[in-house]
Amino acid sequence: MAEPQQDIDEEAFGITDRLVGDVRDAVERGDADAVDGLLDPLHPADIAHLLEQIDGRQRRDLIAIWNAGMDGDILSELAENLREEVIEQLAPAELADAVRDLESDDVVDLVEYLDEDQQEAVLEALDAGDRVVVEQALSYPEESAGRHMQSELVRAPSHWTVGEAIDFLRSDVVLPEQFYHIILVDPRLKAVGYVTLGRILSHPRATPLMDLAEDSFRTFHVAQDVEEVAQAINHYHMITAPVVDDDERIVGVITIDDAMVFLEEEAEEDILRLAGVGEGSLSDRVLDTTRQRFPWLAVNLVTAILASLVIALFEETIAGLVALAVLMPIVASMGGNAGTQSLTVAVRAIATRDLTGANVWRVIRREALVGLINGVIFAIVMGIVGVIWFGSPMLGVVIGVAMVINLVVAGLAGTIVPVVLERMGVDPALASGAFVTTVTDIVGFFAFLGLAALWLL
Amino acid sequence: MAEPQQDIDEEAFGITDRLVGDVRDAVERGDADAVDGLLDPLHPADIAHLLEQIDGRQRRDLIAIWNAGMDGDILSELAENLREEVIEQLAPAELADAVRDLESDDVVDLVEYLDEDQQEAVLEALDAGDRVVVEQALSYPEESAGRHMQSELVRAPSHWTVGEAIDFLRSDVVLPEQFYHIILVDPRLKAVGYVTLGRILSHPRATPLMDLAEDSFRTFHVAQDVEEVAQAINHYHMITAPVVDDDERIVGVITIDDAMVFLEEEAEEDILRLAGVGEGSLSDRVLDTTRQRFPWLAVNLVTAILASLVIALFEETIAGLVALAVLMPIVASMGGNAGTQSLTVAVRAIATRDLTGANVWRVIRREALVGLINGVIFAIVMGIVGVIWFGSPMLGVVIGVAMVINLVVAGLAGTIVPVVLERMGVDPALASGAFVTTVTDIVGFFAFLGLAALWLL
Repeated sequence: MAEPQQDIDEEAFGITDRLVGDVRDAVERGDADAVDGLLDPLHPADIAHLLEQIDGRQRRDLIAIWNAGMDGDILSELAENLREEVIEQLAPAELADAVRDLESDDVVDLVEYLDEDQQEAVLEALDAGDRVVVEQALSYPEESAGRHMQSELVRAPSHWTVGEAIDFLRSDVVLPEQFYHIILVDPRLKAVGYVTLGRILSHPRATPLMDLAEDSFRTFHVAQDVEEVAQAINHYHMITAPVVDDDERIVGVITIDDAMVFLEEEAEEDILRLAGVGEGSLSDRVLDTTRQRFPWLAVNLVTAILASLVIALFEETIAGLVALAVLMPIVASMGGNAGTQSLTVAVRAIATRDLTGANVWRVIRREALVGLINGVIFAIVMGIVGVIWFGSPMLGVVIGVAMVINLVVAGLAGTIVPVVLERMGVDPALASGAFVTTVTDIVGFFAFLGLAALWLL
Repeated sequence: MAEPQQDIDEEAFGITDRLVGDVRDAVERGDADAVDGLLDPLHPADIAHLLEQIDGRQRRDLIAIWNAGMDGDILSELAENLREEVIEQLAPAELADAVRDLESDDVVDLVEYLDEDQQEAVLEALDAGDRVVVEQALSYPEESAGRHMQSELVRAPSHWTVGEAIDFLRSDVVLPEQFYHIILVDPRLKAVGYVTLGRILSHPRATPLMDLAEDSFRTFHVAQDVEEVAQAINHYHMITAPVVDDDERIVGVITIDDAMVFLEEEAEEDILRLAGVGEGSLSDRVLDTTRQRFPWLAVNLVTAILASLVIALFEETIAGLVALAVLMPIVASMGGNAGTQSLTVAVRAIATRDLTGANVWRVIRREALVGLINGVIFAIVMGIVGVIWFGSPMLGVVIGVAMVINLVVAGLAGTIVPVVLERMGVDPALASGAFVTTVTDIVGFFAFLGLAALWLL
C-alpha cells in the first residue's frame, strides 16, 4: 500500500468489478498466463468470491486453463452450492493436493454435504491419521460442536511451568496453523483451564501455568449445538472454546473466527427465513431458486384465499357500497405491516435470548399498547381521509375503529405467534410471517367489512 | 461443571428464568445479601443481560441495594438505551471506579452516546493518559475505525529477534489485557508486518521476528468505516486488524471479538430495517417504540392509499362484478410476497458483496425468470380456483394473467430498487420494502382490475 490515505474511499476488502471483468476477458481469450497473473496476488477468499461472481460456463473454462490450480483454502471459502460443481471438475490428484493441508474442521466443512463418491474421494486423499479425525467428526450429529470443532490444539499438563511450555512448543511437535491458548489438562486428560499465549510470553520461565490461567473457564460438550457455542463465544468474548467428550477430556476447540462464520450464517438464515426465501443464494440455479421460493408463495396463496373467503362473506355489503372495496386493503395492509414489525422484534429477541419466560408477559402487554397508540393515531388520520374522500363520517368511524382493532391484534399476534412456535420447537423465523399476516388480513377485512355491515347499511 | 454430559440439554450460555425470578424476589424483599449471593458468580455479560430483563423500577432498586456495585465490564455489556439510566444512578466515585480498568475502546463505546454531562463525568474519572487516548478516539468520525480501535497494542521494531521480544514482554511494560499478535514497525513507526504469538513461542530466541511474519499483512486507515473493517476481518479470517494514520504509523487495532459485535449489530440492523422497525429493542420504553415504528407505518399508509386510488379508478368495474373485490387482494398479496423475497436476497447480497456491478444484469434477468416461472404456476392454480369458485373461465384467465405480470414485476422491482437505492447512497435495507410493495400493489390491482374491465365487462 503505497498511498494508504487513498484507502478511505476504497473498499476495505474484496475485489473490484474491473478485476472480475479482466479475469472474464482473459478466460474468454483462453489466456492462461493472464489468468495466473490476475489471480496469483489474491487471497483465497477473494478468489472464491470471484468464482461465485462469474457464471457456470466461465467458471469451468477458468478452472480448466488455470495453471496454479484450485487449492484447499479456496474450496473452503467457496459457497456450498458451488463446491460440488468445482470438485467434480478436479482430477483426483488435484483434489488430493488441495485438501491435504487443510485443518480437520475445514475438511469436515468441505465434505459434509458432498455426495458420497466425492466425499470418499476427498477422504482418500488424506493421510490415514487425518482421515480418522475427519471420520470421527463426521460421526457427530450435524450442527454439533463435535462435527465442527478443530481437533488440532495445544494442550499441556497443568503442573507445567512457562519454561516447560516454551521448550515443548520449540520442540519438533506439530502445531496448529493458528492457536491462541494452551489448554491445561490433568493426568486423565480432563480440561482444567487455559492460558493465553500473551501471559505465557510475559512471565518468567519458572512461573507455573496454573497461576496464569484465565479466571473463567468454560467447556462445551461435543453434542452441544455449534450455533449455541458460537453465541456463547460472542457473549463471553472468548477466543477459543474448548470442546470436551463425556469424560470431560478435551477433544477439540471451536475458534472465534469459525464462530463468527456460524453467527453470520445464523443471522443470514433468519433474514432469509423471515422473508420466506429459505436457503437462497445468488449463485443457485434459476430452477433451484424457483423451487426454494415456491413453498412460501404457496402458503401465502392459501392465506390470501382465506382472507378472500372473509371478503366473500360481505359481497352484498360491498355491492351496496363499493367504497368499501377501495378502502379495505388499507386496513389489512397496515395490520400486516404492524404485525411484521412486532414479529421481527420478537423473532430476533428470541434468538438473542432477550425475550424469555421471565419477561414474555411484559413484552406482550407492551406490544399491544404500542399497537393501540399507533392504531389510535392512524385511526384518526384514516377517519379524516375517509370523510374527505367519500364524504361519509360514519365510514370514517368504521375504518378508524377497524384500524385500532387490527393494530392491537397485530401487536399481540406478532409476539404470541413466534413465542408459541418456539415453545413447540418450530423455528419462529420460518413460520411466523405466514401466521401473523393471515391473522391481520382476516381480522382487518372482518372488522372493517363487519362494522360497515352493522353501522353503514 | 461436575456433570458435563448434562450440558447437552442445557443452554450453552446465559441465565435461567428461575435466576431472574430469584433476583427479582430478593430485590422485592430488599435482601442485599441474597442479591450479592446470586449475582456474584455471574459473568458481567450475564449480569448486564439480567438487568435488561427486569423492569425499570426493579433495576433501580437492585442497583440501590447492591453492595458489590456496578463495574465497568457490566456497563460495557449493557444495552445502549439502558446505559444513561444506569449511569445516572451512580455516584461520581462509583462511576470512576467502574470505568478505570476498561480498555480505551470500551470507554469510547460507553461514552460516545451519553449526554455531555455524563460523558464529562466519565472522562474525569480516567487517568490523564487514558483520557487523552479516549478524547483522541472521540475526535474521529462516528463509525470509523479510529473511533472504535483499541489503542492498547504490542509493537516491536522489525529488526528484533524472538529473544528480544520475549525479554521485552517479560519486562515491566504495561500490556493489553488480551493480545494475540506483535505488530512489527520500522524506525519511523510505520507498520510493516505482524507475528502471531504462537510462532514466537515455537521458535528459538535467535530467530528474527521478520522471518516469522504472516504472509498477508493488511492495514486499515483510521477513517475507514469500522463495519467494513469488521467485514474484512471476517472475510480474511484475521484476529487483529492494524489501524494506521495518514503516515501509515500504527495507532491501534480492531480485534476480532469487537468485529464480531459490529457484524452482529449490522445484521441485526438490516433485519430490523427490512421490517421497518428502525433501531428497536425490547428494553425501549413504550413511547420510544411507538415513535420508532410510526414512520414506516405512515409510509405504508401512503402507499396503501396510492393502491386504493388505483382501485378507485375501477369502482364501476367492481360495482359490475363484486367477485373482483373478493379476488383482487390475492394478486397484490402474492406480488408483495414475491417482491419481498427478491428484495431480501438482493439487500443481503449487496451487504455481503455478492451482488455487484459485475453480475447485476445477470441477477436481474434471473429474478425476472424466477418470477415468470412461479407466476405461471400460480396463474394456473388461481385460474382454476377462479373458475371453480365463481364459475367464470374468463375470470380465471384475468387473475392468471395478472398474477404472471405481477410476479415478474415483483422480481424486477425487488432487485432493481435496492440496487438503485444503494447507488444513490441510501441504505437499501431501510427503504426498499416500501417502494417494492407500492409497485407490486399498484401493478397487482391495476393489472387485475384493468384486464377485468377490458375482458369481462
